[in-house]
Parts: sequence; C-alpha cells; structure tokens
Amino acid sequence: MLAPIEPNPATPLYFDDLHIGQRFVSATHALDAAQIIAFAQIYDPQPFHLDEAKAHATLFGKLVASGWHTASISMRLLVSSGPPIASGIIGSGGELSWPRPTYPGDILRVESEILELVPSRSRPERGMVVIRNETRNQRDEIVQVFSPKLVVPRKG
Amino acid sequence: MLAPIEPNPATPLYFDDLHIGQRFVSATHALDAAQIIAFAQIYDPQPFHLDEAKAHATLFGKLVASGWHTASISMRLLVSSGPPIASGIIGSGGELSWPRPTYPGDILRVESEILELVPSRSRPERGMVVIRNETRNQRDEIVQVFSPKLVVPRKG
Repeated sequence: MLAPIEPNPATPLYFDDLHIGQRFVSATHALDAAQIIAFAQIYDPQPFHLDEAKAHATLFGKLVASGWHTASISMRLLVSSGPPIASGIIGSGGELSWPRPTYPGDILRVESEILELVPSRSRPERGMVVIRNETRNQRDEIVQVFSPKLVVPRKG
Repeated sequence: MLAPIEPNPATPLYFDDLHIGQRFVSATHALDAAQIIAFAQIYDPQPFHLDEAKAHATLFGKLVASGWHTASISMRLLVSSGPPIASGIIGSGGELSWPRPTYPGDILRVESEILELVPSRSRPERGMVVIRNETRNQRDEIVQVFSPKLVVPRKG
C-alpha cells in the first residue's frame, strides 16, 4: 500500500501565469509487482495484472500494470509535483492512450506541456487549458499520454 | 478498502460472437465517502476529493470522487460483470470523459455497446473492437464515457 501523499507545495499558478509550450516535469515513482497486484485485485483482476506465472500465457507475456493503475500513479505525480494549478487539476476528460505496458521495476515520471490557452468569454474569472501529460519510464519510453482540458482560474 | 473481486464467470465471448449494437449491463457498485477519500489520499490528494468541509470552497462545492476512481470502479465492474471477452479486456486507450462528478452515495453501473468490429488483416487470429462504456449513476445520469479499442481473439 502506498503512503498518502501531499499536494504540490509550489506557488500556485493561474491562467495568466501559463504560456503555450511551458513544460513541467514531475518527481518519479518506482512501481513494483506488489503495487501492481494490489491495485489489480481491487480494480482490474485480470491474470496479466495479478500473477507473473499466469501472465506468461496471455497477450502480454508477463506481469503488467493495469492501465488505470498507470493513470492513477500519473495523477499522484501530477498532483504532488506537476504543474501547481491554483484551483487544482480539474479536467472533464480527454484522449487517453497507453502506447506500451508498464512493468514491475518501472520508474515513472510525468512530463507536461501546455498546448492551448483559451480565455472563457462567459466566465471571465477562468480559462480553459489543454495540457499534454506524457508518463515516461526510466528508458524514456512513453507509457501513457493524457491530454485533458483543464479549468484554470484567472488572477484577481 | 474494497474487497478483491473475481473476473467474470460468464462464458467467454470471441470476436465472432460479437455484433454491432450488442449491449451489456454490469452489476452495480455503491460508492461512499470513505472509499472516495481512501482512493484520493493515495492517488489524487486534492481538497475536493478528501474532505467534505474543504470541498465547499472549491469549484465542485462538495466532496466528489477522483475521475480516476470513477474510471477504476468502472473497470472493476467491467471485468467482474461486463462483456466476458475471451482474452480479457485489453485496450490501448480511447476518448475518456467525465460529463458530471460522482458523489458519495452514488450507485454506479456500466452500460456497454459494441460500436465497431474490424477483423485484423495482418493477424487473422484477432480483431479490433470499439466498445462504448457509459458509467451511469442511480439517477441514470452519465458520469463517465470511455470508448476504447480492444484486441479480441477470433475463434479456433
């Protein structure tokens, strides 16, 4: 079981503090088989997420993390050490992909880049931000891409 | 902490058993504040996922589940009582959206519909299936839509 984690202590950023192309790199998280299996038992109990021996007979050939586990770890990294958005990281969804599996022993980080900044016409106190979040392993391979639209407050 | 859950005991379905428009409805899952907070402490420690009182001052106005928690519960429902795909539910991603929040007390289910069936030319032993998974609450409101492309084995 992972320890609870604190939100990002960095100075909060508002819509007006962001620019297109701005990049952020999170801390790292070391994934192991015990974490992968514990998550899968509750949320995704399929043989390739539960048991190294049973995983051999599947499409993956070895134990891999649930995509939702990779996504949840990525959120842990974003909230604790990614872009310190003033009101928090609040999104309504986006395109999600897992280009390759995550394995026990992988060390994950999230690299984020601001892609779009759109002030709201109807709500002058906020804007919409599209951010591309790439989760990468220790070999610099991308294991997840998620590009949500975030609601971000304006200054003042 | 939720109890571990078993994969779907139903007869496995192959690519050739599926047709466009085919629908599946999962069992239900009752979400409560304790589950929401326990997930958030590990994976998404933001005030609107952690504390009813602190959530009042945020965009949401009350305690809501992390979107990744909604996604993980949806996967739990799909794997345990959704479409019993022969090799398991294996996807490389898709469009993910959370049209409205999930609250303590919500009772969730997943309704799935087969949208596309594309036999593989290069790999005759499998096909690609697009499935739309709507997670709905007890008021029949959609709280999540995820439409992944799945890899599904053919018969024989």
